[in-house]
Amino acid sequence: MDIMKKDLLEICNLSTSEIDDLITLAKDIIKNPDKYREHCKNKKIATLFYEPSTRTRFSFESAMLDLGGTVVGFSSPTECSVAKGESVADTARTVECFADIIAIRHFKEGAAYVAATNVDIPVINAGDGGHHHPTQTLADLLTIYTEKKTFENLTIGLCGDLKYGRTVHSLVSAMKRYKGTKFYFISPTKLKMPEHVMTALENCNIEHIETAYLEEAMPELDVLYMTRIQRERFSNQAEYIKLKGTYILDSPKLEFAKEDLCIMHPLPRVDEIAVEVDADPRAAYFRQVKNGKFIRMALIIKLLEATNTERPYITDATEFAPTVIKCRNTRCISSIEQGLTPLFIKAKTGYRCIYCDCKAR
Amino acid sequence: MDIMKKDLLEICNLSTSEIDDLITLAKDIIKNPDKYREHCKNKKIATLFYEPSTRTRFSFESAMLDLGGTVVGFSSPTECSVAKGESVADTARTVECFADIIAIRHFKEGAAYVAATNVDIPVINAGDGGHHHPTQTLADLLTIYTEKKTFENLTIGLCGDLKYGRTVHSLVSAMKRYKGTKFYFISPTKLKMPEHVMTALENCNIEHIETAYLEEAMPELDVLYMTRIQRERFSNQAEYIKLKGTYILDSPKLEFAKEDLCIMHPLPRVDEIAVEVDADPRAAYFRQVKNGKFIRMALIIKLLEATNTERPYITDATEFAPTVIKCRNTRCISSIEQGLTPLFIKAKTGYRCIYCDCKAR
Amino acid sequence: MDIMKKDLLEICNLSTSEIDDLITLAKDIIKNPDKYREHCKNKKIATLFYEPSTRTRFSFESAMLDLGGTVVGFSSPTECSVAKGESVADTARTVECFADIIAIRHFKEGAAYVAATNVDIPVINAGDGGHHHPTQTLADLLTIYTEKKTFENLTIGLCGDLKYGRTVHSLVSAMKRYKGTKFYFISPTKLKMPEHVMTALENCNIEHIETAYLEEAMPELDVLYMTRIQRERFSNQAEYIKLKGTYILDSPKLEFAKEDLCIMHPLPRVDEIAVEVDADPRAAYFRQVKNGKFIRMALIIKLLEATNTERPYITDATEFAPTVIKCRNTRCISSIEQGLTPLFIKAKTGYRCIYCDCKAR
Repeated sequence: MDIMKKDLLEICNLSTSEIDDLITLAKDIIKNPDKYREHCKNKKIATLFYEPSTRTRFSFESAMLDLGGTVVGFSSPTECSVAKGESVADTARTVECFADIIAIRHFKEGAAYVAATNVDIPVINAGDGGHHHPTQTLADLLTIYTEKKTFENLTIGLCGDLKYGRTVHSLVSAMKRYKGTKFYFISPTKLKMPEHVMTALENCNIEHIETAYLEEAMPELDVLYMTRIQRERFSNQAEYIKLKGTYILDSPKLEFAKEDLCIMHPLPRVDEIAVEVDADPRAAYFRQVKNGKFIRMALIIKLLEATNTERPYITDATEFAPTVIKCRNTRCISSIEQGLTPLFIKAKTGYRCIYCDCKAR
Repeated sequence: MDIMKKDLLEICNLSTSEIDDLITLAKDIIKNPDKYREHCKNKKIATLFYEPSTRTRFSFESAMLDLGGTVVGFSSPTECSVAKGESVADTARTVECFADIIAIRHFKEGAAYVAATNVDIPVINAGDGGHHHPTQTLADLLTIYTEKKTFENLTIGLCGDLKYGRTVHSLVSAMKRYKGTKFYFISPTKLKMPEHVMTALENCNIEHIETAYLEEAMPELDVLYMTRIQRERFSNQAEYIKLKGTYILDSPKLEFAKEDLCIMHPLPRVDEIAVEVDADPRAAYFRQVKNGKFIRMALIIKLLEATNTERPYITDATEFAPTVIKCRNTRCISSIEQGLTPLFIKAKTGYRCIYCDCKAR
Repeated sequence: MDIMKKDLLEICNLSTSEIDDLITLAKDIIKNPDKYREHCKNKKIATLFYEPSTRTRFSFESAMLDLGGTVVGFSSPTECSVAKGESVADTARTVECFADIIAIRHFKEGAAYVAATNVDIPVINAGDGGHHHPTQTLADLLTIYTEKKTFENLTIGLCGDLKYGRTVHSLVSAMKRYKGTKFYFISPTKLKMPEHVMTALENCNIEHIETAYLEEAMPELDVLYMTRIQRERFSNQAEYIKLKGTYILDSPKLEFAKEDLCIMHPLPRVDEIAVEVDADPRAAYFRQVKNGKFIRMALIIKLLEATNTERPYITDATEFAPTVIKCRNTRCISSIEQGLTPLFIKAKTGYRCIYCDCKAR
């Protein structure tokens, strides 16, 4: 198989069979690490982290090092030319002169898209604001597969902040492709799964149950995916404190769980999983970190082999709105990027920004 | 040939034949990269960036990695021992214990000189304030050569801030060595090429024309070197805004240019070259970035092979002024470096500081 | 021999014979560097520097690179996930997924201990606040050995801030193990060697002389270990200024020193050793830096070979005080680490915190 696109910007860029291929390759890397130790010799990854993330950066860098390649990078905006006002596009084109593949993390939505459209080498989105983080989803999928040995007939509980958590949205959209998936959405009312995710599930006839009570879902779950509830989401602090405890996973709550439950978390955690749970063999979240490295090794291999080097998506100019429209999303890369043409793609209900996916207003 | 000096502190450290040798070597590296992949095996470069510069740092680091060497470094003052008050001299001597060659960038003029005089390993000046940046000039020269296939009989336009731009001064001083060079200096009156550069050209009978109008020079040019005009240079903001547009390179202005014009820029740009120009095959500025890596590979090879390990220049003590004189340039490294002896060298019109080249007052 | 423990948290973790083995190995590395160039191929060190330290970080990183291994790391808190509130324990467990050995520097006492108790891979304490810094002591010991060719019958002068200087305390505790060691403690009264160090020496019958005058001790010394006197230690600035000069090492003071004196300093220095002394062949402080790299190479080799993978020290639960006690030392890692169980070990005069060694109150 070929990776169809030269880049990985969001999980939807990958077909089910491409995901399966990545997981197969990752499993082979886990089994035969020596086979891959020189695989990317003389190749370089550039890790452009406009926002610090130790875990994700180390994961990409050690993935490349374990393939025999090398690394150049920056790990925070204070180290790079951002201060001098260089655009993401120019930085990407500069870095293309030095590296063979780019992993970019940025605080603005659509930054990875901008990088990808400006270079011929593969670009991996390592997180663009609250928008996409596809390698996290790949790590999640590899973890589910290695822990449960299948993607089929799994009951998956997603717990915590389901409204803003990008990892849970991506995971739902990836897992709904498999036979027999059933979801429990466990969250306070204020942080419920957004309407568009629910509608998508209904359209595919995927079973999903909403509840405010973790205990209620627990006995049914094959996988429990925990996320953090951020204090900032609540204007009423008393309500926050009241609710918080309900969504903390501790040993008593696990008493009613299946013996082979798989507990996941994208990390870092603050206190949403009690430290006592770490010793439970069902706690898979540090194995999940390790899987993150292996799936990134597979991804780097596949993207460097990809023969389709077409830059992303500006395929049909007639779909674009008049460029006089400006995206009003302040988290969009178009709000800061010099010389960026505003582009909108026609969607069912109007136009949406090609960078951040927000509706044009 | 041997590099005469162990260090590269300013472009004048190199003779024309040494520059030619570097360019010949760089061209061979471009042609046969595999030949050099292990050339610096077991060698380490230390990148000491007291001031962030993604492009320059990545260029040095990927140069060393592509030669099979490795890297230690810091990329901003927050990461290093500056806060603890360590002198550049002590840092350099410490780093000498770990690395085989140093690339140093510092916000103070003369910092690379201080490092070079304190260690036996080669030191490359990767920019010391507004003072010198010789590897940028080498990258510029390699670009002119690879784009034009010759250094002779070229008409070179330099556009923008010619008063403060160190890269243009170095480029003029390097290019004036070649037969048939002709310069156009294109700038607002306030930002004209300084007197000493003009005098040097007149002394050598090099043709040079000053103009305020880019359009006027355009049809004559083989090379157009763009630089940025900084808003801070103008006290009158209305004047700045009026002038600015005149010096922005866009497609209409290029209509009158030669078919084989070579457009260069040291980057990062802000808006002095319109993004539309990037698609023009004459736009050489990203190729210039790539050339920067290749010439740095050549330089690293040559400096590590250099047999002259003499520390720079304190050859004749009688030339120095009494040490009671203190350099008054606040941008000079002597303004912050602990334990540094003030040194002045006798020049035609008095003494000048050996670190920053400023006249002693 | 085996390193008994999987980690090096403080110099007391090593027996005299283990130190001797490390020094023997370091000497072999110095003699035959090529023999070790691939020794750690496919191994990775993670350098977790929550506090910047160019020298120590470069030393660990170049040690690993010179063994053929690779590096992932961060060099200041702005680059890592500290801002997101991740605990040291979680960071260490995450990093364990990517690396084979950890070197951690942290501003809080006991941070390396927390890391070590949470992972199976070796952890090296690269400095935890003012607490421990065992690889500095190893570098000091290797320097004494390579300069003096013996550890026996040496008269060692320690000069400067003996009250707060952790390196001098560790060096005393390491050197007192050898036959014929004699100490001169040279400091202002306010910064005298603490009582517990003096008592320990008296219990072992080790000769030690206290003096306020460097000149007095000078003629006797085989080794002079200089440290910095920090201005902050004095409430009375006039007293500080009066005293300061007495403890600055310059050429005149060295006139009365032995011909083969070995002058050491942990660096960075500010002005406690005059720059003129650097040219004196007895100045060993930059050789000391180089020895730091070699001993770290030896340490990395030994720890990666260690077969005892037991996590540190929580061997006898009955020794611990009720967990209701909280450590009151604001420099203790327990003051900021989420989910850390307070632990106290029974000492002669009450309980002491297992992380920072402070007495429980």
